[in-house]
Amino acid sequence: MGSSFGQLFRITTWGESHGGGVGVVIDGCPPRLELSEEDIQRDLDRRRPGQSEIVTPRSEADRCRILSGVFEGRTLGTPISILVKNKDARPEAYSEMKTAFRPSHADFTYEAKYGIRNWQGGGRASARETVGRVAAGAVAKKLLGKLLQERFEIVAYVTQIHEVSARIDRTSVRTEDVERNAVRCPDEAAAELMTALIQSVRAEGDSVGGVIECVIRGIDAGLGEPVFDKLEADLAKAMLSLPASKGFEIGSGFAATRMKGSEHNDPFEVREEKIRTTTNNSGGVQGGISNGEDIFFRVAFKPTSTIARDQKTVTASREETTLAARGRHDPCVLPRAVPIVEAMAALVLCDHALRQKAISDLENRISES
Amino acid sequence: MGSSFGQLFRITTWGESHGGGVGVVIDGCPPRLELSEEDIQRDLDRRRPGQSEIVTPRSEADRCRILSGVFEGRTLGTPISILVKNKDARPEAYSEMKTAFRPSHADFTYEAKYGIRNWQGGGRASARETVGRVAAGAVAKKLLGKLLQERFEIVAYVTQIHEVSARIDRTSVRTEDVERNAVRCPDEAAAELMTALIQSVRAEGDSVGGVIECVIRGIDAGLGEPVFDKLEADLAKAMLSLPASKGFEIGSGFAATRMKGSEHNDPFEVREEKIRTTTNNSGGVQGGISNGEDIFFRVAFKPTSTIARDQKTVTASREETTLAARGRHDPCVLPRAVPIVEAMAALVLCDHALRQKAISDLENRISES
Amino acid sequence: MGSSFGQLFRITTWGESHGGGVGVVIDGCPPRLELSEEDIQRDLDRRRPGQSEIVTPRSEADRCRILSGVFEGRTLGTPISILVKNKDARPEAYSEMKTAFRPSHADFTYEAKYGIRNWQGGGRASARETVGRVAAGAVAKKLLGKLLQERFEIVAYVTQIHEVSARIDRTSVRTEDVERNAVRCPDEAAAELMTALIQSVRAEGDSVGGVIECVIRGIDAGLGEPVFDKLEADLAKAMLSLPASKGFEIGSGFAATRMKGSEHNDPFEVREEKIRTTTNNSGGVQGGISNGEDIFFRVAFKPTSTIARDQKTVTASREETTLAARGRHDPCVLPRAVPIVEAMAALVLCDHALRQKAISDLENRISES
Amino acid sequence: MGSSFGQLFRITTWGESHGGGVGVVIDGCPPRLELSEEDIQRDLDRRRPGQSEIVTPRSEADRCRILSGVFEGRTLGTPISILVKNKDARPEAYSEMKTAFRPSHADFTYEAKYGIRNWQGGGRASARETVGRVAAGAVAKKLLGKLLQERFEIVAYVTQIHEVSARIDRTSVRTEDVERNAVRCPDEAAAELMTALIQSVRAEGDSVGGVIECVIRGIDAGLGEPVFDKLEADLAKAMLSLPASKGFEIGSGFAATRMKGSEHNDPFEVREEKIRTTTNNSGGVQGGISNGEDIFFRVAFKPTSTIARDQKTVTASREETTLAARGRHDPCVLPRAVPIVEAMAALVLCDHALRQKAISDLENRISES
Repeated sequence: MGSSFGQLFRITTWGESHGGGVGVVIDGCPPRLELSEEDIQRDLDRRRPGQSEIVTPRSEADRCRILSGVFEGRTLGTPISILVKNKDARPEAYSEMKTAFRPSHADFTYEAKYGIRNWQGGGRASARETVGRVAAGAVAKKLLGKLLQERFEIVAYVTQIHEVSARIDRTSVRTEDVERNAVRCPDEAAAELMTALIQSVRAEGDSVGGVIECVIRGIDAGLGEPVFDKLEADLAKAMLSLPASKGFEIGSGFAATRMKGSEHNDPFEVREEKIRTTTNNSGGVQGGISNGEDIFFRVAFKPTSTIARDQKTVTASREETTLAARGRHDPCVLPRAVPIVEAMAALVLCDHALRQKAISDLENRISES
Repeated sequence: MGSSFGQLFRITTWGESHGGGVGVVIDGCPPRLELSEEDIQRDLDRRRPGQSEIVTPRSEADRCRILSGVFEGRTLGTPISILVKNKDARPEAYSEMKTAFRPSHADFTYEAKYGIRNWQGGGRASARETVGRVAAGAVAKKLLGKLLQERFEIVAYVTQIHEVSARIDRTSVRTEDVERNAVRCPDEAAAELMTALIQSVRAEGDSVGGVIECVIRGIDAGLGEPVFDKLEADLAKAMLSLPASKGFEIGSGFAATRMKGSEHNDPFEVREEKIRTTTNNSGGVQGGISNGEDIFFRVAFKPTSTIARDQKTVTASREETTLAARGRHDPCVLPRAVPIVEAMAALVLCDHALRQKAISDLENRISES
Repeated sequence: MGSSFGQLFRITTWGESHGGGVGVVIDGCPPRLELSEEDIQRDLDRRRPGQSEIVTPRSEADRCRILSGVFEGRTLGTPISILVKNKDARPEAYSEMKTAFRPSHADFTYEAKYGIRNWQGGGRASARETVGRVAAGAVAKKLLGKLLQERFEIVAYVTQIHEVSARIDRTSVRTEDVERNAVRCPDEAAAELMTALIQSVRAEGDSVGGVIECVIRGIDAGLGEPVFDKLEADLAKAMLSLPASKGFEIGSGFAATRMKGSEHNDPFEVREEKIRTTTNNSGGVQGGISNGEDIFFRVAFKPTSTIARDQKTVTASREETTLAARGRHDPCVLPRAVPIVEAMAALVLCDHALRQKAISDLENRISES
Repeated sequence: MGSSFGQLFRITTWGESHGGGVGVVIDGCPPRLELSEEDIQRDLDRRRPGQSEIVTPRSEADRCRILSGVFEGRTLGTPISILVKNKDARPEAYSEMKTAFRPSHADFTYEAKYGIRNWQGGGRASARETVGRVAAGAVAKKLLGKLLQERFEIVAYVTQIHEVSARIDRTSVRTEDVERNAVRCPDEAAAELMTALIQSVRAEGDSVGGVIECVIRGIDAGLGEPVFDKLEADLAKAMLSLPASKGFEIGSGFAATRMKGSEHNDPFEVREEKIRTTTNNSGGVQGGISNGEDIFFRVAFKPTSTIARDQKTVTASREETTLAARGRHDPCVLPRAVPIVEAMAALVLCDHALRQKAISDLENRISES
């Protein structure tokens, strides 16, 4: 269990890092949406390994195939099955992992839970699982473009790597600014420092983490649910379900804890004939429901657990040993995590958009529509 | 939708702040668990208004009644319905809210979503909804006591109010330390400062937020799911579903973003014949699954949106107006949020404990058990 | 688990036959639907005991109370909690059931499953649980009236009691025809025979079963899902979840097994500018999806298990014993099951109507609606 | 939506009859179950076209591939993805279906629901979708063998084709008796008549339906849920979700409607130190929960809709036309439906076995197990 996400736009991912492949089944995508493999490939290419000098050199082309649910270029309303085959598998690089538990990886916890694990490259716990999320997210983005305002867009970007922080204008940043450099930080000066840092850390056999921010524009007021499925709750779950993430904050986030109510509250005003807020400490969500302002949140990622240095650990038979990574890996997950954060955000919003669609407009009979 | 939580230990809360009452239905509680109204009342009393000088004076006795699912002091395995009637309703105190939207409340977003709202005291968005969560959480705690190790316990406490931070030894803090003062901060010196701050802020007609930390001990390795339903993902959703929460971090959290892998990784060692980690930056969870160490996380709460000062806002008919709270309210939600955080944590763990029970021990046939 | 039904219009029932009461929580009802306790009471009165001479004399007024989710006569979009208190509890009438298992009742299976049971009157297995279904079904019917064509209606009726079969014109029968007699069979001549039969069977201390047919008119083509959640699959589940039901058939049903394809197929034609079928062996559903014709199905109910005659059985301690019912009971469940069948049908259709609403009309942006 | 089935042992099927292939993802299979492609292939071979002279000659080898979730011959606890490629696609055979709606097929209803359909061979409504069900059912059967008593088995067989009925001893029939002939009827004399009938009907360009019975042995008392998810309710849904099924009855079924309570009730007795019933009109289920007796039920299948004769119909543009099937098809679906009925029964039981496992044995702490 636990490999499905969403209520109405529901995805199920499958696959281990080494084996036949990875994939996703999307159930609940409305019919007649234009969709091609290229739509999906674009985001997969942003996620795939080997795309730049600061990420893992594992060379997966990650070509996706749509196996069902699309006919003559449009969705059928039936499940969309997407498959990406695994190609560059070198399980022998992982032979030590067969018995020794890598520190801060999921080797030990999988063993404790299941009593068995695919020790080749992380198995199901590998970030390769996110291929399915990104593929589904690409479909969700297309659908949201139809369901929401024309100005809808999701832009995620790196704002901090270790001690290097970027200065970014959240209200105006665009995807093209983000894609301008390999680190996916739209502040060019900071991006250069970040790149240098990642390269130096890799040379040391070490790793670094950081923060990704995501801003979503063009969401109508009214998406989200009041109690458990608050928009921020589902976003938090989505983000904490990502490998290596350790924290989530929306709007003012942890900084809100040092503000007073009189500073933090977002006064309402009428702007361009719409009810708007003058500030946006709420991060676009109030009481779990979007208020029409930009939604933005931040996700904390820890430094990659796989490092080239010797680390103390134990084996399944409880003997002490030392382990140093030999498999290929990213010294910093953030550049490749940017499209994954966007994908998860799209999946949450898409699900809530369909949920809202189901209950709104009671006055219009289904048969008339 | 959105009023249910959990897969196997599944709760559905209902009720508005003003109306017949609030309650919860728990479906999936195993049979033969000893359960009384007193078990539930204990935690409700920790949540209820009017319990100390620093919380809202609204005087609800909040007596719970178990309407079903319990027979001769033990659970039947059937749904447990728990009802708490609303008593001290003064809807007239909220008459201004009928048209004007309170800043940073859910008035506007509910109106946008539903086109209708119970404007009396916040309706479904009121923190009164959490009565059902706390009642269900009390049942979950009892069940976890049966399902897990004997040393199982959940302890939440306030670690920060506005600029006042407490020093607390996370590994040893106990519930009795927390309950020693009204602010529920086990650092007595800090608690005094926090109490003074809350009283002074109330006098100013303002409000403050802060941070609650929660530590969970005695969780076996193996709870949690690999992908979307990671333990930290479900905890994040649970916490961000609480009114006024803006952030969540587990283990090292946002601080991890400034660490290197070599510092952050938790080496494994053998301690008392068990596989343990020497540090706990992971916060007790690796790859979404518990590793047997203490689980701990922090939740950021914003300052209460209801303040006594005049605030600019607009009405449903888009006229500018000014609003000042007259209803009773908390100048700081954190003291009463402590048992709610514990309840949500218990619900998440209980659900995952049952999920693990379903798939473990394949060797034992059901009929033999 | 197992006390919830529906994906989008989701209900959770709770309660035992003896205890605080029975009830239901409806999550997912759209906002702004006019709803009063009277709307619900009407159907509860058709289900309640003591309404005529051929049903159990247990005298429950079964007055319902809406505890949440409705404000100023309209739904809020939040969970609707409905409570019906238990009044006429005489648990002493059931004392023998404490140890002995009534034949063909759920006493033994509950004991086997849970190791505990509320032996007073059947507990959760009592038909009293259906109070919550009927209450929720009344809300579903109101909602369907808004969502569907104006000619939408659900009419269920008794077509057979033991060997007495009725002749009923399925295409024209109306609720007022059904409600004209206590047995709820619109063929008056058959109804008289059925009434006499039920009374004579009761005098013998015995019981009888029969068949209820249900016809649903005014369903647009397009409701239902292709694979597991076919409309007929969800209807079958709904009906087999009713106490005492043993079979379900839609359209031609079991009779189809003796027809050839050339007889059974429903040719399409154009009628009043609509695509229609000339016959309706399909029962209004093709490939799991409504085709715009009347939907009709039949449900088989066994004779009531509770009979006044001596029956052989065993006790929990495996001793042979004899048991004769002393509690009040129905010699035939069908008359009171008619509104329950309608309620379950309404719940299934309502859920599918909202599901269809979520995916249809992709061309209209949510924000424009 | 609607392509998933089960709560804990949850499967999602995908795929159209013509396109990349068909498949299933199983989420929730416990770890360490021995599983190979051969385990699955055995049942797929019983379902596949071209296996005998009385079924469709479409020649699909239907070789399955396990893409994930299995490692070194045992399940990992992660999703099991199974793929069967489509090979023998001749979409040109279906060109007429592009515009004309085949009577009693899902062409029209899919068009009404989605506004688009894959008209090649039935698309998602094709019986080819059941490949995924059979593959998942094979896994479920293996798992049940571990979870239940050793004498667990599921045997389905044809009991009636059109007017030809078989005489079968339900208590002793075995799979090898069923597989002895192509029609899958263990009464050899009846099987010969059925085969002759099917061949003669095919020669006439017509089709026939019939009844499949299924008996399940070795189910412990206690599987099933009390209210909506009664074992018979979930079985009914499972069976009515099959293409061409029109009815379901369990135990005495529709015949119960002509019995009196005193005849129908199953008295309890003690047999071999176990609590047993002397008769089994209940069909092994009481109050939705298994009672330890054999579970048995019957499913009605209509005659295949695809027939070679000219049939009246209309086109999407509402013109009258005539259609005669040219694609390959089965004159009677029942022989190939036998393994599908078994698969669906296995899926229902497996899900309930895991659900029961989750709540039973509260006395044993998880950590000790």
